[in-house]
Order: sequence, then C-alpha cells, then structure tokens
Amino acid sequence: MTKPTCLVNGVRSDGVPVDDRGLHYGDGLFETIAIENGKVLCLAQHMHRLQDGCQRLGITFPPLQQLLSEVRALAAGQPQALCKVIVTRAAGKRGYRPGNVDTGQRIVLLYPGGNAPTGAPLNIRVCETRLGRNPAIAGLKHLNRLEQVVASREWNDPEVAEGLMLDDRGQVIEATMCNVFAVRNGMLITPDLSHCGVAGIVRDQVLELAEQVTRRSAQIGDYTLDEFLDCNEIFLCNTVREVAPVRRVDEREFVPGPVTQAMRDAVYQLRRPETGRNLDSDTRRGGD
Amino acid sequence: MTKPTCLVNGVRSDGVPVDDRGLHYGDGLFETIAIENGKVLCLAQHMHRLQDGCQRLGITFPPLQQLLSEVRALAAGQPQALCKVIVTRAAGKRGYRPGNVDTGQRIVLLYPGGNAPTGAPLNIRVCETRLGRNPAIAGLKHLNRLEQVVASREWNDPEVAEGLMLDDRGQVIEATMCNVFAVRNGMLITPDLSHCGVAGIVRDQVLELAEQVTRRSAQIGDYTLDEFLDCNEIFLCNTVREVAPVRRVDEREFVPGPVTQAMRDAVYQLRRPETGRNLDSDTRRGGD
Repeated sequence: MTKPTCLVNGVRSDGVPVDDRGLHYGDGLFETIAIENGKVLCLAQHMHRLQDGCQRLGITFPPLQQLLSEVRALAAGQPQALCKVIVTRAAGKRGYRPGNVDTGQRIVLLYPGGNAPTGAPLNIRVCETRLGRNPAIAGLKHLNRLEQVVASREWNDPEVAEGLMLDDRGQVIEATMCNVFAVRNGMLITPDLSHCGVAGIVRDQVLELAEQVTRRSAQIGDYTLDEFLDCNEIFLCNTVREVAPVRRVDEREFVPGPVTQAMRDAVYQLRRPETGRNLDSDTRRGGD
Repeated sequence: MTKPTCLVNGVRSDGVPVDDRGLHYGDGLFETIAIENGKVLCLAQHMHRLQDGCQRLGITFPPLQQLLSEVRALAAGQPQALCKVIVTRAAGKRGYRPGNVDTGQRIVLLYPGGNAPTGAPLNIRVCETRLGRNPAIAGLKHLNRLEQVVASREWNDPEVAEGLMLDDRGQVIEATMCNVFAVRNGMLITPDLSHCGVAGIVRDQVLELAEQVTRRSAQIGDYTLDEFLDCNEIFLCNTVREVAPVRRVDEREFVPGPVTQAMRDAVYQLRRPETGRNLDSDTRRGGD
C-alpha cells in the first residue's frame, strides 16, 4: 500500500505531531476532494464547508490562501486523484477542554489514482449499526467516524457497495460514505440531518439542482426505512461517486430511473462548468 | 507547553503516521493511567479494558508484554505523572472499511507532573451538549470524543471543575472526564452505560467496593437529572481524581458526606495494595 503524499502545515511530512487533538479526540474536520486532469473540483464549496465547520467547533480556520495553494500544488499533474484536507484543533494541553489558542492545523493528503464516477447501479444493505443523535455536531464532516467504521465491518460481500444507516430512533439518515435521495412521484426526498449525518457537498448540489431537474424543490424530512423505500428510485451521492443509482437495498429491487439519470448529468455538469452544457453524456458512461 | 514523551510501536517518535486511522476516523481506544513514585497504578485493569475494547472493535491487540514494558519504561523514576496509551487500527487504505489486517498500533505517551488526588469538593455544572446514544460503541474509551470537547467549551469559569452530561433523551450519563455516582438513603446509584458513556476503571472499582462500603450493591439504572439529584451525596470518579465529592451542581448545594469519604478511602487503598489497610487517610488529604 502506498502512503499518501502529505503536507502538515505546508511542510512535506510522514507524521503528525503526537499530541495532535485530531488523533486524541477526533477534534477536527475533513474534506475529500476530487481531482481530474490536475483540476480540483468544487474547491470553493469544500473550503466554504470547512470554514463553516471550524466556526461551529471554534477552531481558527487556517490561512485560506495557503491551504488553497497546498491543495493545488498536490493536485497538479494528477490525472485522477483524491485530496483529503484535515483541519484539527492542533495540539493542546492534555484534556478535552481546548486551550486558549485554537489554531487550526492543516494536514493535506494526496491519494493518486481511483476511477471517475461511472454511475453503475449499486447494491446496498441496511446496517444494523445505528447513528447516535447529536445536534451539537450533526451535519459536520468531523473526525469522529467510529460509527461508520463499525457499520462498514458488518459485511464482506464485494457485491455490496454501501450500507444505509438509520439513527437510534429508526429514521433513515445516510449511507456510511454517501448521502441518500429517493424519488417519489417525481419528487426528490432526502433525510433531515439536523440530528446526525454529514451534510455532503454533492447533497447540496443535488438540492440546488432539484427544481431544474424535477420542477420542484426536494423535500427534506424524517423517514422511517419503510417510508423511505416506498419510492420509485433511490440514489446515493458523494464526491467520489457523484450520483449513483441504487439497484437493490437488501432483497428489495429498484430500477435505476430517469430522475436519477437526469440528476447525474446535471451534477456532472455543475461540477465541471468548463465542460459546458452540450456535453454528450453518453461518452463518459461505462462499466464500473 | 512541553510535548509529551512518546513511543510509537516502541520507538521514540514525535509523530504518528499521517495515514493512521486514529487520526482519520478516531478508530482506536485509549487509557489514561496514573503513575506515582515510578509505580503504575492498576496497570492490569487498564490493559484488560483495552483488550476488551480492541476485541469489540475487531482491532488486533498489540503484544501485551511489549506494551507493558513500554509503559513501565516511561513510568520509571516519575514521581507523579500520567501515561496515556492509545491503540489505533493503524493504517489502512482510504475509506472507513478496515483492511484485512487490523494490526493495533500502539502509541504510549508520558505526561510528567500533575497532582495526587486531593478529594477537594468540586463545583460542577450541567452541560447543554448531550451525548448521542449508540450501543455499538457505548462503554468504550474510544477516540471519538468530540461531544466531550464541545461540552468542555461551554464554560470558562475556573471555579467549575466539571460538566455533567445527559444523553439526548435526558438521562444522566457521566461527566465529561469522570463517571458519576449518587448516594441515596445510603445506597450508591450510577447511570447505566449501555447506550453511551465510558465505563471507567475507577467506576468498576467503586462498584466492586460498594458492598464493603455501603453493605449493599450499587444500583445501575436510568435516571433523569431530577431523579439523580434527589440524593444525599454526589461524587465523581476517574483515574486522575479517583473519588471526588461534589459540592455544587449549578445552583444546587450538596454536603460532601460519609459514604463518599469512605469510598474515597477504600478506592485509594484498592489502587495501592502495598500501602496496606492501616493507612492514616488524614495524612494524604489537603487543599486542591
């Protein structure tokens, strides 16, 4: 396994300080950013979310221009890659209480390779591991991800691409790595994330595009599993997969449908404004 | 601020690998262990809990003898110190799903200094930040501690030593760094931790000593804040404070009482078997 290339506060490094609060408490946030042909996709949106998250946690946001130039430097010349940006509350004295100076420490990692999103339909499962509800940190892409790790250990079947997670009251929230949407009577529905879950960048893009694609706003609400699955189409979304139709949730089959396809095309174009609106979407579809 | 001395997998180091899953996901566990006069207190119990936690998370426990000798090497000659042992699921490919080899990476840190537990009565407050309920990881001393960090940021008053946390349904669970007991009609009560909270070593010791000190077992249950505070005494416990009486919870006053004092003495002796049962407890009490 190749180690990722890493910059810690702008300096090439193989290690993060042993007293980093990201390690000790998960006291930090991260972004996973797609790179194509040396270009960083949606960098402004990622930085915006990271700033918002830092503000909510009271972490001083690192100098933006430095962070941008570090991401771009690592991205340069990469045909296909992921860049992970972590901002932690740096080091502090021992104990949960942060010190007076909550300087954000920046850790920028490059993972070369990977595949462009193919849109191949996914089989997913419903996880037994539930998500705890905590409005204080809900929506944030923070470093406390043990629930997702435990959920991911529930299955080994390589045919199962993802796991759908409910909260401890039985409401659908998200998949371990993706947000989730369903299409019901032509309208998009997606879980409310004010108690748990990560409010993803691509989720925001889907919400933004809902009216254009479906002629009405998406509905954000609380749905039990049965309520959510009572639909015509389901899709997952995140930075790596963009929009990916779901073919099966456990034993229940779904037909990848026209709304998912139209949203997939719209998100693809929104994320690559330079490709223009006349892109022949068929040329980029293919097997997974 | 002095950096702690640190061994990563037995080697003196200032950094942990940038792809460590402890940093990326909080995918690991920790112990905070007290050192007095070069002696490590309750090392066997800490190692036992760490092993249990690793088993629950599917992390391969590191070679025990190496870990023990590393802790003892750092402890040697330290009049008063804390040793923090972190075991993470080491590095893996990107993504929440662990790899096939979940080798536990060991990170042993020494924080010299600190004070012996004084037993001075504490003022505490009730935090607004709640704990999410998740049986899958409840009880574990895992590295996902953002809820405690956020709760700790709620107050700045140096007179307030700790914050009491409820879960999202309003049940009392623990303090940010301590477990909590109340004394009601001579009997110990303490919150059930099967949905959230950390099952502390000193909590176990208090439970073990309950019959000796109060002539009956402690009651573990679900208590709202009002139910819990309807009591004669309250105390907190952890490795650093051992047993510490609570004098005030927000505006509500409590008198540090005889059960707390007796438990404090019993825990002190249990944790230092070599001091014998004839210890004059007055000689070690004093101001904080």
